[in-house]
Amino acid sequence: MALPLVLFDVNGTLSDMGRMTQHVEEIGAPPQLAGLWFATVLRDGFALTAAGENPAFRAVAEGALRVVLAGQVLNRDVDDAVAHILTAMQQLPVHPDVADGIRGLTAAGFELAALTNGAATTASGLLERAGVRDAFAAVLSVEDGPGWKPAAGAYTHALAALGRGADDVVLVAAHPWDIDGASRAGLRTAWLNRDASPYPSAMVPPDHEVAQLGDLLSALRT
Amino acid sequence: MALPLVLFDVNGTLSDMGRMTQHVEEIGAPPQLAGLWFATVLRDGFALTAAGENPAFRAVAEGALRVVLAGQVLNRDVDDAVAHILTAMQQLPVHPDVADGIRGLTAAGFELAALTNGAATTASGLLERAGVRDAFAAVLSVEDGPGWKPAAGAYTHALAALGRGADDVVLVAAHPWDIDGASRAGLRTAWLNRDASPYPSAMVPPDHEVAQLGDLLSALRT
Repeated sequence: MALPLVLFDVNGTLSDMGRMTQHVEEIGAPPQLAGLWFATVLRDGFALTAAGENPAFRAVAEGALRVVLAGQVLNRDVDDAVAHILTAMQQLPVHPDVADGIRGLTAAGFELAALTNGAATTASGLLERAGVRDAFAAVLSVEDGPGWKPAAGAYTHALAALGRGADDVVLVAAHPWDIDGASRAGLRTAWLNRDASPYPSAMVPPDHEVAQLGDLLSALRT
Repeated sequence: MALPLVLFDVNGTLSDMGRMTQHVEEIGAPPQLAGLWFATVLRDGFALTAAGENPAFRAVAEGALRVVLAGQVLNRDVDDAVAHILTAMQQLPVHPDVADGIRGLTAAGFELAALTNGAATTASGLLERAGVRDAFAAVLSVEDGPGWKPAAGAYTHALAALGRGADDVVLVAAHPWDIDGASRAGLRTAWLNRDASPYPSAMVPPDHEVAQLGDLLSALRT
């Protein structure tokens, strides 16, 4: 039986968004704003997607950042603060489990790709800094498709670019909304649940659940 | 010239979501979780809408609440905490500017209606407690349409129920994503910006912007 292609989400799944709390503190804001900001970015991007648009991730991220920073006392002016945060977002590391997990999948013969709601250049830069860019056959962005994940068209556009059928691809993501959307589009799914979080009951559950990327290889073999 | 129908969003636009910080503190959690929770509810609801679903607000709200409470030290078990928060959400007051603002519009001859992503019964209960339910010709929910706002179908379904054309309705909301979606669906829009927040650059700007509901009457007459 041929191995499925393993398609990775990027922001938060491979990149360590937890590092953003430190960067938010650097501009004098409460560290909790990092989580609120990222939820707000996705909320606004999904809203625009639901309304039929396909906005640029960076534009949505900047707009949401200016909203969550409004009324906060910062240690610099707001334009400098926004530039600091958006630059930091471009320079995130991967999670500690990523590099070895990726190499284990490659060694076992799996073809890998990535599909991000962000820019393909940002995702490629992340993978290059982590030394694993060569392990990915393709780094795709929804920028080239009809809308953000979890709209069905985001996944089907990626499947066409990869030349694979939906049931021949496993979407790996840390976000239940991505698992849900991929599952509705027909893909197989694996939820990377690093912090033992509950799964939202309104969403389609994953085919596999792993606590770290190193556990994915054995999960996909069962 | 006939007056446009004024169509109000409910959660946060009429109801005072700021009160939720107090209820979050009552279960022993950090007050900032209230804002994160509401952004997460909308994020997940919009994700499901973008994926073609029309989930029940309460199911999404509960699922998101269990996710944001995970790992928090609470002063009761998590099921009790969830019940406390969801009950409080059903018992919110309206913002202080709402009752007089609504009466001013009615006195000036405007027909009013509401369109909520939540349950119609929750919205009706809110308006009844505030003594303004009689001012609304209809209290509509996206439950009866194809998906949550800001999907175009949510607005066009409401227009059909109201028997009005898109350019004969002004959508009033505190949320830019609702203004953006309504505008893309052809409605006129008024942004209720109570906290002098910046407007996200990726979204269609409102036709009118007011700082409190009492300012809406004169804005609609210009």
